[in-house]
Amino acid sequence: MPVVTVKMWKGRSVDQKRKLAKAITDAMVEHADAKPGGLHVIIEESDLENWARAGVLGVDRKDLDKTP
Amino acid sequence: MPVVTVKMWKGRSVDQKRKLAKAITDAMVEHADAKPGGLHVIIEESDLENWARAGVLGVDRKDLDKTP
Amino acid sequence: MPVVTVKMWKGRSVDQKRKLAKAITDAMVEHADAKPGGLHVIIEESDLENWARAGVLGVDRKDLDKTP
Amino acid sequence: MPVVTVKMWKGRSVDQKRKLAKAITDAMVEHADAKPGGLHVIIEESDLENWARAGVLGVDRKDLDKTP
Amino acid sequence: MPVVTVKMWKGRSVDQKRKLAKAITDAMVEHADAKPGGLHVIIEESDLENWARAGVLGVDRKDLDKTP
Amino acid sequence: MPVVTVKMWKGRSVDQKRKLAKAITDAMVEHADAKPGGLHVIIEESDLENWARAGVLGVDRKDLDKTP
Repeated sequence: MPVVTVKMWKGRSVDQKRKLAKAITDAMVEHADAKPGGLHVIIEESDLENWARAGVLGVDRKDLDKTP
Repeated sequence: MPVVTVKMWKGRSVDQKRKLAKAITDAMVEHADAKPGGLHVIIEESDLENWARAGVLGVDRKDLDKTP
Repeated sequence: MPVVTVKMWKGRSVDQKRKLAKAITDAMVEHADAKPGGLHVIIEESDLENWARAGVLGVDRKDLDKTP
Repeated sequence: MPVVTVKMWKGRSVDQKRKLAKAITDAMVEHADAKPGGLHVIIEESDLENWARAGVLGVDRKDLDKTP
Repeated sequence: MPVVTVKMWKGRSVDQKRKLAKAITDAMVEHADAKPGGLHVIIEESDLENWARAGVLGVDRKDLDKTP
Repeated sequence: MPVVTVKMWKGRSVDQKRKLAKAITDAMVEHADAKPGGLHVIIEESDLENWARAGVLGVDRKDLDKTP
């Protein structure tokens, strides 16, 4: 019955999301006694201009290495 | 003063959202003593590739019946 | 399959929550084509010191009328 | 280590977001003892048809003055 | 840099949370190119009276099997 | 009309929250054209066992320096 929300930058492929959702679901079943039937994994993708770390937007980061 | 967030798949019309926001607001006023003035209803729409249930993305579901 | 989250101040009774969850679920089924089976309503209650409007915490509001 | 999420209507420029993220980060460091290194500010922008106040969608509001 | 939020019922032990956070982090690194350094996993636990499925609160469910 | 949510560890005093909510509200008004009247700041506090960074729960971190 849990709801897992993943917030990250845009750019993952559908196949990456597919594997990610499966792996998180497996982790929930194995470690949190969750039943997969009612388990939701929601991915929320962010633009670089909508996420700051240490007060600096993603679009302004020099060291940006494309990883989310 | 409450904030109600509805996460669902894309595809509702503006008129459906209009009626939904009204009905949820009415429910909050009737059952939770909320005052409508400061009551927010936020709708967040998801792509089929960004929501998994039972570890399977919406884009991969065979039984998908277009309901959110 | 939608997930509805209600954030409000503490203080509703279990019976109020019961009716609220039912009414929101009905609204989702009627207006958003949702199927009730996978529909989650999550209530998140906040202390008065953890919610500000217009920059003023709930604990500091003079006009507080106990409605959420 | 905190995560600050700002939900508002679309329409701020990148420069507004830049200054906003910086100012919120400064506020967290000054008033909440946060270290900027692990501090995230996430901006989530909403369409006018996806946000209702007092049961009325943004697209239906007559008094709309373009402020979020 | 992603933020993963897990909403579920109360009742997991610290050790279950420890393994869950580790497994979700590993899944993010393997499948979403995330770097662990800035990756947050936040667990939000809910009371049975604050979560409804199909319009029925957890406290009212007859078939409740203690799994989240 | 925006909603700002601050997720951080427990431990800030009411006075810290008071100043934080005020400062974030001021930042929203100055940089995002927000009107304070409908602006909500919600603080969500987390236990150390419910937040992991780099796959390690707060309760397990050796370098923990009590800052959020």
